[in-house]
Amino acid sequence: MKDKAVFYHAGCPVCVEAEHQMLAALDRNRYDVEVVHLGTDKRRLSEAERLGVKSVPALALDGRVFHINFGAKLDALR
Amino acid sequence: MKDKAVFYHAGCPVCVEAEHQMLAALDRNRYDVEVVHLGTDKRRLSEAERLGVKSVPALALDGRVFHINFGAKLDALR
Repeated sequence: MKDKAVFYHAGCPVCVEAEHQMLAALDRNRYDVEVVHLGTDKRRLSEAERLGVKSVPALALDGRVFHINFGAKLDALR
Repeated sequence: MKDKAVFYHAGCPVCVEAEHQMLAALDRNRYDVEVVHLGTDKRRLSEAERLGVKSVPALALDGRVFHINFGAKLDALR
């Protein structure tokens, strides 16, 4: 049975490409990957909170939360 | 040819297990994974800086840096 990888985000456009790169790097033979947009899917907020998500983007691997900061460059905002 | 994934860290013992979990989740068919301990391998500091590493742990996927904050629980320090 595969473990579960859940990527929580809030639709930040600057990070979308970066996030996709990180998700694409995961081993799909080992993980079922789900992407949850907490800005639009607010029913998932309590679940995320329970897991320990403090900020987005965050990746939960089998229930363990990693907060990911791509650190958008200011150039991306110009 | 595989892309390169470099995990930069400084040996923080609290995060070691978590970091291993994240590395284990990467698709090894797509990435050659290297782990660099910047605390002991200081020759790699300038390389990390050049890539944009601002803090550790950080994961560089094909040159793009993701800063990862596992967010050690205080319980782990007791």
